[in-house]
Amino acid sequence: MTDTSLYDTGPPRASAPGADGEELLRRGAALVDPPLRAAVAGLHPSTAAVCRYHLGWDADESPTSVRHVAKRVRAALALLSVRSVGAPERFAAVAGTAVELVHQLSLLHDDIMDGDAERRGRPAAWARFGTGAAVLAGDALVVQAVATVLRAEAPGARAAMEDLITAVEQMVEGQAEDLALERRALREVSTSRYARMARGKTGALFGCAAALGAVLADAPAPVVRALRAAGGDLGVAFQILDDVLGLWGDGALTGKPVGADLVRGKKTLPLVLAAAVDSPEGRRVAELLDVVPLPQDRVPEVMRLLEAVGGRERAEEAAARHVAAALAALDAARLPGEVRQEWSSLVACLSRRRR
Amino acid sequence: MTDTSLYDTGPPRASAPGADGEELLRRGAALVDPPLRAAVAGLHPSTAAVCRYHLGWDADESPTSVRHVAKRVRAALALLSVRSVGAPERFAAVAGTAVELVHQLSLLHDDIMDGDAERRGRPAAWARFGTGAAVLAGDALVVQAVATVLRAEAPGARAAMEDLITAVEQMVEGQAEDLALERRALREVSTSRYARMARGKTGALFGCAAALGAVLADAPAPVVRALRAAGGDLGVAFQILDDVLGLWGDGALTGKPVGADLVRGKKTLPLVLAAAVDSPEGRRVAELLDVVPLPQDRVPEVMRLLEAVGGRERAEEAAARHVAAALAALDAARLPGEVRQEWSSLVACLSRRRR
Repeated sequence: MTDTSLYDTGPPRASAPGADGEELLRRGAALVDPPLRAAVAGLHPSTAAVCRYHLGWDADESPTSVRHVAKRVRAALALLSVRSVGAPERFAAVAGTAVELVHQLSLLHDDIMDGDAERRGRPAAWARFGTGAAVLAGDALVVQAVATVLRAEAPGARAAMEDLITAVEQMVEGQAEDLALERRALREVSTSRYARMARGKTGALFGCAAALGAVLADAPAPVVRALRAAGGDLGVAFQILDDVLGLWGDGALTGKPVGADLVRGKKTLPLVLAAAVDSPEGRRVAELLDVVPLPQDRVPEVMRLLEAVGGRERAEEAAARHVAAALAALDAARLPGEVRQEWSSLVACLSRRRR
Repeated sequence: MTDTSLYDTGPPRASAPGADGEELLRRGAALVDPPLRAAVAGLHPSTAAVCRYHLGWDADESPTSVRHVAKRVRAALALLSVRSVGAPERFAAVAGTAVELVHQLSLLHDDIMDGDAERRGRPAAWARFGTGAAVLAGDALVVQAVATVLRAEAPGARAAMEDLITAVEQMVEGQAEDLALERRALREVSTSRYARMARGKTGALFGCAAALGAVLADAPAPVVRALRAAGGDLGVAFQILDDVLGLWGDGALTGKPVGADLVRGKKTLPLVLAAAVDSPEGRRVAELLDVVPLPQDRVPEVMRLLEAVGGRERAEEAAARHVAAALAALDAARLPGEVRQEWSSLVACLSRRRR
């Protein structure tokens, strides 16, 4: 198994004064944790119970645990969003909380849509509390996300609301496209169609997270645009790595059964790229994936074929190109050197994701 | 079977210059139909297909059909909201569309939560397209609702957003309470707890519909408060009539199987009131409803007991009290005579609901 590291910034320079990626994730998590808990505490007790379980708060999971912190990518992006424009951290708290609430809605509802009965190594919320309770908990969270931005005192609150709503619109559309692609034959799904789906499903909210703090602070439009573009490309890279981890990851770390996407007919990038290879192996991948759900006993053959045509390496290369595009967008924004270094550290950290 | 009319304004006076209730429902439906269709048309094709089916647009249902118009209560409230303050109808179009989108989200998701496989006499959206597709369609609609108010050009747009979000928060909480009450013994559910649930589940969005147009027009706070209060009480009355129709209505008109709420353990007001009656019949109702789901062969006995203790009449009296409270709130608002008459006509029309 190769390393999933895609982007190597080299060893951290001793002179680098900014926070490293892990530290940014920790700070982002610490920033959004109190407002997230407050938002959940205001819900109906039975809805709050579903949310607390879903968020891992019932299991005495420390807000500083590695697993918990690793999941707060969007909060770290929100933190860098305000640091990029020299705005106060309270805008990052608002932005990170709103985006995190939307993200949690998407997890709650996507698990229902995808029939994923496991998350973080235990039953998904719908499997534990019932589909209805999980649907309602997601509804409650998206309303809280909107309320968080609406009730924020910030010069750019109106524009931030527009940003958030546009991101959620795109996310919902991306999820719809993801479901629609499941019903398509693999050979019909082009890489550009995959990219469009991933830009909506994951990229839009990442882009929003990277921009929203700056938008709340009423930062100049060119910087906001660059931050949103960078976040969007990082989101696509993140989604591709998610695809890779779903096939070759460690289920004990990802908390989801390996191969589930494959069986369900999910059009993940390694498959899309493998089926596009003009070779007997490539054609065989497309042929095998014509049957949905894929019979479990076909999984080893598909995995061998994917290795043979380099499906994993091709996907990782694609992710690396999106990471490079994100860094190029950040370069164009001419951020202060220290903040630019922090972006690199966070990107490097995300590129090494295993969960 | 008695008439469900609760409030009789007498025959329409020949001199009344305002629109009658049916006409208001038609105008409200005509006002929100184009923006509703535009909102749905902008969604992902597969999500739009679910929404079109759910909204009855696939069945060549005329936007002026009785069944269709009868369902646009909230749009008619939005219309009266602007007429009450002399504001332009375009604010009613925004308000009615936003509220209707939220209402449709609630129907899509509530059918999943309640396991209702039928709506309007045909399979519910989740039963037709799958749970995942219906969950996503609801998510798409609530985002469109927020976007509708956000993108409106109106002096009170910021306040209107706060109103809408607060109403959706209360609606989600009311729905959570409704589900929580299903798991409670009937004797534990007081009328005040029922009222709190109904105020959230149905009253909040009715109140929002009745106020939002005026809020968008930046109307004076006392009038807005009176309109919201009136709408809230009408919503509770509407919910109570819904409970009554679920037990004694005509399934061919309501489009839902009669008695389904009863079997599921839904704490509808006729049951709550019947179980509170200190008589052998009242106690027997409470006892029978301890078992959830109620065995189908117990339904006739419960229906006989409900008749015996006057569960239906008591519920209808409660609805009439809420209607009276709504009219009192409107009186306090000192609306122009013609508009006040239109409110009475609409209220009378809603009180006669059979579907």
